[in-house]
Amino acid sequence: MTAPPLFRRIALIGFGLIGGSIARAARAQGLAGEIVVTARSAKTRARVTELGIADRVVDTNAEAASDADLVILCIPVGACGAVAQEIASHLRPDAIVSDVGSVKGAVVREMTPYLPTSVHFVPAHPVAGTEHSGPDSGFAELFINRWCILTPPDKTDIAAVDKLRAFWTAIGARVEIMTPQHHDLVLAITSHLPHLIAYTIVGTADELGEVTSSEVMKFSAGGFRDFTRIAASDPTMWRDVFLANKDAVLEMLGTFNEDLSKLTRAMRRGDGEALFEHFTRTRAIRRGIVEIGQDSAAPDFGRLQTGAKKP
Amino acid sequence: MTAPPLFRRIALIGFGLIGGSIARAARAQGLAGEIVVTARSAKTRARVTELGIADRVVDTNAEAASDADLVILCIPVGACGAVAQEIASHLRPDAIVSDVGSVKGAVVREMTPYLPTSVHFVPAHPVAGTEHSGPDSGFAELFINRWCILTPPDKTDIAAVDKLRAFWTAIGARVEIMTPQHHDLVLAITSHLPHLIAYTIVGTADELGEVTSSEVMKFSAGGFRDFTRIAASDPTMWRDVFLANKDAVLEMLGTFNEDLSKLTRAMRRGDGEALFEHFTRTRAIRRGIVEIGQDSAAPDFGRLQTGAKKP
Repeated sequence: MTAPPLFRRIALIGFGLIGGSIARAARAQGLAGEIVVTARSAKTRARVTELGIADRVVDTNAEAASDADLVILCIPVGACGAVAQEIASHLRPDAIVSDVGSVKGAVVREMTPYLPTSVHFVPAHPVAGTEHSGPDSGFAELFINRWCILTPPDKTDIAAVDKLRAFWTAIGARVEIMTPQHHDLVLAITSHLPHLIAYTIVGTADELGEVTSSEVMKFSAGGFRDFTRIAASDPTMWRDVFLANKDAVLEMLGTFNEDLSKLTRAMRRGDGEALFEHFTRTRAIRRGIVEIGQDSAAPDFGRLQTGAKKP
Repeated sequence: MTAPPLFRRIALIGFGLIGGSIARAARAQGLAGEIVVTARSAKTRARVTELGIADRVVDTNAEAASDADLVILCIPVGACGAVAQEIASHLRPDAIVSDVGSVKGAVVREMTPYLPTSVHFVPAHPVAGTEHSGPDSGFAELFINRWCILTPPDKTDIAAVDKLRAFWTAIGARVEIMTPQHHDLVLAITSHLPHLIAYTIVGTADELGEVTSSEVMKFSAGGFRDFTRIAASDPTMWRDVFLANKDAVLEMLGTFNEDLSKLTRAMRRGDGEALFEHFTRTRAIRRGIVEIGQDSAAPDFGRLQTGAKKP
């Protein structure tokens, strides 16, 4: 005899990289009596049915949300308000409603007005992903040792927060709680600005007159290729992120631009000492990230690991 | 009976990631009758002796260069001129002299005046590396399927260029020939500017008042950690690169800044269409790089490969 699953019925609205990974992980860990999935496009719904990961695939958001005790919106942040409105009257009292959006302030602002006070709204953001998207891109291990940030409003029921925390912990994540405002600042520097910059430089390289695209691709191993992975992330998701977290990204961008001017000036003036000092300092941050297990110490992200034999 | 090795004696001046990888690869492929190594610090020389990769470890650059038929400078570009001066009178007539510097115009300018006309100067740049440095960081497979760019002056002996091409090909690289000026433009966008930007943003993140360094590290999986790997590269090497290729980097930086302003303006104005269009275009470049084998299609650089099972 085993313990009953954490949730009787989990509804996943949207089935991209994150939704698909949650479904696979929840099933692998036996966390749901039933997993009900819906997606906007008929093509995705058909694919989810084929994959056989969901217990039921339904056509509408309302149908998915009905009678679920956990509803997770796994969709671009720009769509969250409209979906909240759509499902509001179908939610069961005491249901936990959550999301996975990379921006929290805007999601809270846009969803809250529609949600009945009888449900528990616990916004979430698993800081995990790859450059791939779509129903086939997810995998059960995506969240292992990654952080999931919860941003529950002050008055939220503690039991509901704990239950969602238990869910994310069970699929491998480490959970941290903060305000939506602080979340949006932290992610602006650790995720949104890096994406904006990667998208920019990859675009720049594509439009040069003096260097061909073929040359850019051939000689990309010098650093550029790492930016292209980031700049291959889902365009809809990222459009919404930049529109929804504009203020925090602009703030970080201001600081970045000042720092870039400083390094540019050092380069222009031939100030090798200033460059050396800066480059030495940034090395220490890398060490910190590897030490806390947020990246691998394998050279070159492990691309060369199999070849990295000592003589 | 086997064919005689390509070079009777190869001298490697410097034994970091690149020098150490060349030594390991040349030995693995039997390309040298003898590999003679020197390094500036006694500690490195002692470590190379311990590693047992070189046939001989000597104390001075002059001693290393003496009687070698291939001499490769594996040192930061800023040191190439002084080392050329030091070895010049010890070079054997007909020796091939090369380097591995990431900037070619400055290296050619600084080394050429010292080299006797009796030697063949064939500057080279293997576009390969990891974020690690030092005598232990090299491995024989580093150059496999990576490009090595040769920038021989117009009047260079074709046989010497062909011999160096054969050497790089034998250790796995693909060889391309271009002018030093064009090389420096190509690398400014595919390597130097990405490094400058990564160094900048990692520094920015380290100095924020509102977000702690600990938070930056914890939530780095959202994109930031990929920049930290690049910003963990060898500080001396990169200081020299930016000083030596200042003009081309500043030119590319100008275009990058214009493009960043364009995306910033789109974000500020809430122009989602412009953002979406840009983010869709950059995806195609990533596909090109994966198609020509310059990166892996494994999600997240293969970090999650072992976990990426389908249900």
